Amino acid sequence: MPHQVEFEPIGRRGPVGEGNTVLTAARTLGVDLVALCDGHGTCGRCKVRLLEGELTAPTAIEDARLSNAERQEGWRLACQARLLGDVRLYVPPESLTTPQRTLVEGQELPTAPEPTVDFVEIHLIPPSLEQLVADAENIRRAVLEAHGQECRQFDLAMLQQASAHLRGNGWEAQAVLRDGECIAALSTKAPHIGLAVDLGTTKVAGYLLDLDSGRTCASAGLMNPQIAYGEDVITRIDRAMRSDAEARHMQALAGQAVDQLAADLTAAIGATPADIVDAVVVGNTAMHHLLLRLPVEQLVMAPFVPAVGDALDVKARDIGLHLAAGAYVHLLPNIAGYVGADHVAMMLGTGIWQASGTVLAIDIGTNTEICLAHHGELTSVSCASGPAFEGAHITHGMRAAVGAIERLSLHEQHILCATIGGASPVGLCGSGILDALAALYQAGVLNATGKMNEHPLVRDSDGQREFVLVPADETNGRAAITLTQRDVRELQLAKGAIRTGITALLRSRQLTDEDLDEVIIAGAFGSYIQVSSAIAIGMLPALPEQMFRQVGNAAGMGSKMALISASQRRIAATVAGRARYLELASLPDFSETFTDSMYLGEYHISLQR
Amino acid sequence: MPHQVEFEPIGRRGPVGEGNTVLTAARTLGVDLVALCDGHGTCGRCKVRLLEGELTAPTAIEDARLSNAERQEGWRLACQARLLGDVRLYVPPESLTTPQRTLVEGQELPTAPEPTVDFVEIHLIPPSLEQLVADAENIRRAVLEAHGQECRQFDLAMLQQASAHLRGNGWEAQAVLRDGECIAALSTKAPHIGLAVDLGTTKVAGYLLDLDSGRTCASAGLMNPQIAYGEDVITRIDRAMRSDAEARHMQALAGQAVDQLAADLTAAIGATPADIVDAVVVGNTAMHHLLLRLPVEQLVMAPFVPAVGDALDVKARDIGLHLAAGAYVHLLPNIAGYVGADHVAMMLGTGIWQASGTVLAIDIGTNTEICLAHHGELTSVSCASGPAFEGAHITHGMRAAVGAIERLSLHEQHILCATIGGASPVGLCGSGILDALAALYQAGVLNATGKMNEHPLVRDSDGQREFVLVPADETNGRAAITLTQRDVRELQLAKGAIRTGITALLRSRQLTDEDLDEVIIAGAFGSYIQVSSAIAIGMLPALPEQMFRQVGNAAGMGSKMALISASQRRIAATVAGRARYLELASLPDFSETFTDSMYLGEYHISLQR
Repeated sequence: MPHQVEFEPIGRRGPVGEGNTVLTAARTLGVDLVALCDGHGTCGRCKVRLLEGELTAPTAIEDARLSNAERQEGWRLACQARLLGDVRLYVPPESLTTPQRTLVEGQELPTAPEPTVDFVEIHLIPPSLEQLVADAENIRRAVLEAHGQECRQFDLAMLQQASAHLRGNGWEAQAVLRDGECIAALSTKAPHIGLAVDLGTTKVAGYLLDLDSGRTCASAGLMNPQIAYGEDVITRIDRAMRSDAEARHMQALAGQAVDQLAADLTAAIGATPADIVDAVVVGNTAMHHLLLRLPVEQLVMAPFVPAVGDALDVKARDIGLHLAAGAYVHLLPNIAGYVGADHVAMMLGTGIWQASGTVLAIDIGTNTEICLAHHGELTSVSCASGPAFEGAHITHGMRAAVGAIERLSLHEQHILCATIGGASPVGLCGSGILDALAALYQAGVLNATGKMNEHPLVRDSDGQREFVLVPADETNGRAAITLTQRDVRELQLAKGAIRTGITALLRSRQLTDEDLDEVIIAGAFGSYIQVSSAIAIGMLPALPEQMFRQVGNAAGMGSKMALISASQRRIAATVAGRARYLELASLPDFSETFTDSMYLGEYHISLQR
Repeated sequence: MPHQVEFEPIGRRGPVGEGNTVLTAARTLGVDLVALCDGHGTCGRCKVRLLEGELTAPTAIEDARLSNAERQEGWRLACQARLLGDVRLYVPPESLTTPQRTLVEGQELPTAPEPTVDFVEIHLIPPSLEQLVADAENIRRAVLEAHGQECRQFDLAMLQQASAHLRGNGWEAQAVLRDGECIAALSTKAPHIGLAVDLGTTKVAGYLLDLDSGRTCASAGLMNPQIAYGEDVITRIDRAMRSDAEARHMQALAGQAVDQLAADLTAAIGATPADIVDAVVVGNTAMHHLLLRLPVEQLVMAPFVPAVGDALDVKARDIGLHLAAGAYVHLLPNIAGYVGADHVAMMLGTGIWQASGTVLAIDIGTNTEICLAHHGELTSVSCASGPAFEGAHITHGMRAAVGAIERLSLHEQHILCATIGGASPVGLCGSGILDALAALYQAGVLNATGKMNEHPLVRDSDGQREFVLVPADETNGRAAITLTQRDVRELQLAKGAIRTGITALLRSRQLTDEDLDEVIIAGAFGSYIQVSSAIAIGMLPALPEQMFRQVGNAAGMGSKMALISASQRRIAATVAGRARYLELASLPDFSETFTDSMYLGEYHISLQR
């Protein structure tokens, strides 16, 4: 009897027969687990963690290879554990042969460095019985002499470390000052670096920047480890609400992701996380609150108000991060419960806040935030577009990993497709799903209401129609890759939500799509999609393609700008204050607009419905 | 075979036969352990912790009454564990029938309340879909309206708690502001309280104050729990230097003492530690550094410089304290490695910093700090007087607990003595030791060099002479209480150190004791002593008794003044900067002065040796 097996965070799922090992299941579903010993239990590399469901009891090999703590947390060796029912498994990055693609880069706006910290090289006079001066006062004197500035305050953790540093380094150091507070005493050779992080619900992007030049020294992305506890924000909020311990756990996971990026990025340039003297984190309001362990109940209950909207500076250690002794983390402001600091960062990163004409900036994700700039007035909405375009709830959907179909077109009765890494196809990632939907609509397989018509490649399965995109004989022994009628409905809901947001925004200013000067598409999904496909299904308005600009991870770019520039932080605060939040659900014609928006096909926005 | 048994922190020790229970040993040595069931193992109240040495294996009764964690930490039931060798045992306060006497009170100087925090009562407009305002901004608006002051910053822990508080209390609260930062949101009924702590090496005194009136609501003392790891500062510094874990442990013990006082004192007035919005801690430099987990190595190595001298404000949570969400702890400045914040607090508490004439203030302890004010100029010294006057290293010495002889006089061949609590005598506490030394010197039993002469009450024991103060037949079945020749030598060293400090201070300003207008004696020991005894042995200069003022715990009084008044904190900073530190060991005639100072008998200070 086959059981449903789901691999997180990669988002791959499907049926596998009872009694098969988890490794076989992974191979069946195209998840590339590390198995150096080819499943003999000797390499111990194919670790996975059981999140839900039942597997056979641990074997003697697992008892030997896994620690007590690991076994208690549900860790298993995929080559040893066998299926007894439906299971959900977490695959850590180190158990995957090829990492998932995470978009970290984007179009940069030039920003003059104007860091919030000063580095002051100090050479102290060693204390003696004749010159009895405490270390902190010794530092203060030297800073005043070298820099003409008074340290009004010393961070406690900095003081805990500084004495040993001074004695071990010939009484020389770089004092790091922030707003009159001495937050670190580093080696005179330490680089001047800061960390910017875009903490997404699914992906976390990190950037290490030289604070003097503003140059990016290194960047990397990883999956948000909270995914193991729920793909969407609501599930995680729900989890954090269960108990204080759960809230602390969700906080710790978010913190670990930031710490991991700090460690990886500094290692890449031969530095250490203790060299990071400043950090900026942006994320949606829920990620922001989970990272700060702020209450999240109120984000899911009307009237959906955050605990804090304004920008915050917190000590890195207060959220469990391991950066320089007294380093702060700056959190950009949130606009509303569903329009968070990542949206403000996107406004910085795209420069839309200073656009002179009429510009739309769209960041498509599980939640899609859209900003309209119209002659200097900013309005933002949030649309619950759901995770369909990230491959969730789509039969053969998956995230952007090796083997995912990212481009697809239909030529008469033949599908052409391109996969990530050129591997044999495993499933569809977001841009592939969008192309498939557009291709089927344009070929008339789907009508405007989304109903699937008869077609040689359409078959019945499990009581619904499905279009065979890749037949079983082309999937390296795996099942055929299809798009089902139910998948189409999911996608109509997602694209309908986005189109509703765009329509409502324009109408709120008495505008139509003809008034637009530019449409900026930000975010990972938005960067990989074919705009023509998005226009074809009516997700984006039917404007000439040259009016669209795909800018990549604009929120990440905005976080970098805020990291290196105090002015950009002030701009972010002003912009967040200026932006008007439009609550879609409270609009009188919301339901009608949403119903209209689900139709497939090109569209133009009129002033009235 | 008898074994040496030592009970900490009470400081009582003596020989007890092998095989006796710890409870019997305690009774033999006059330590009043709780034993409600009279040693049958049913009440479980006589818990003690084995610090060193060997006891019999835990009995079945102990296995049942003690948790695994307790057994691993060395906890035992005194009625079950039997002696197998020399042992050192820790007796927690709850296992003693009568608490030790700790001096918390002192003469107060009137101080106008001028707290560093403001309480602002706020009534918020609940947010709605029409009025979407985040909680922090809602608080900011209300504070601005009620108080005319802007919250520039919100403490993170305060934000973590505030949302639930507001929703649970009808959107009303008292916002607590400190220097533009909102550090707590309390119930509108919460009292306005702060905590002042005098963190002594041996004793910790705590005071809960009403910040509006400056009134002391409650006060209490307890033993410093670090005592279990060493009676003196050097042992504890040594311990903290062993490893990071040991340093953290010593820090945690100090923090626990403060937390314990916070809990006990707030309970006494029906409040909770979370109501404490401000705190001041004073202590010697070592206690200061151990509490803040600052490096202590440098305090015991030349040139003995502290990590920090100036006053510090740290978040209570950063040192593990559990007060109001974002509460700070203010640490008064240290002057030098051995003249710490407690000395500065004593200067505040005695008002010596504003004395117009020539005044000496002496705080006698394991370390004795002395300040000389001479026409507005302040000079301070530290003398290593040792713990002899606290009963340590004295054969029948003990701390000031029930049964300790606190007053003693010799009438011909008969000793008259008074004990704490009027109990049958158990040993000698500091003031009793001082009286005994004076009485024996004045009766000619001791000569000026400290040599013990023949006397009907002098006997030979263990190769040395000893004076029988209380014969065995008057000690309720315990051994006789004596003062030995070796005890006398210890006491000469202690009093010699203090006299050296006084002499050096006066000579540094070209003064003699005749120039003095007043001698202030601060601290617990100094409050209980008979000044005449101290003059008789030559510990204090031979001045008319009315020139001495015994002020009690002046450091504690100073900590209270700093708690309620920002001006007093500024004065403390100025005073610490003005005070000149005189390093005794670096004086050219130090050894000679010290040798002279050990002689018994009244003395006067000359300008030259």
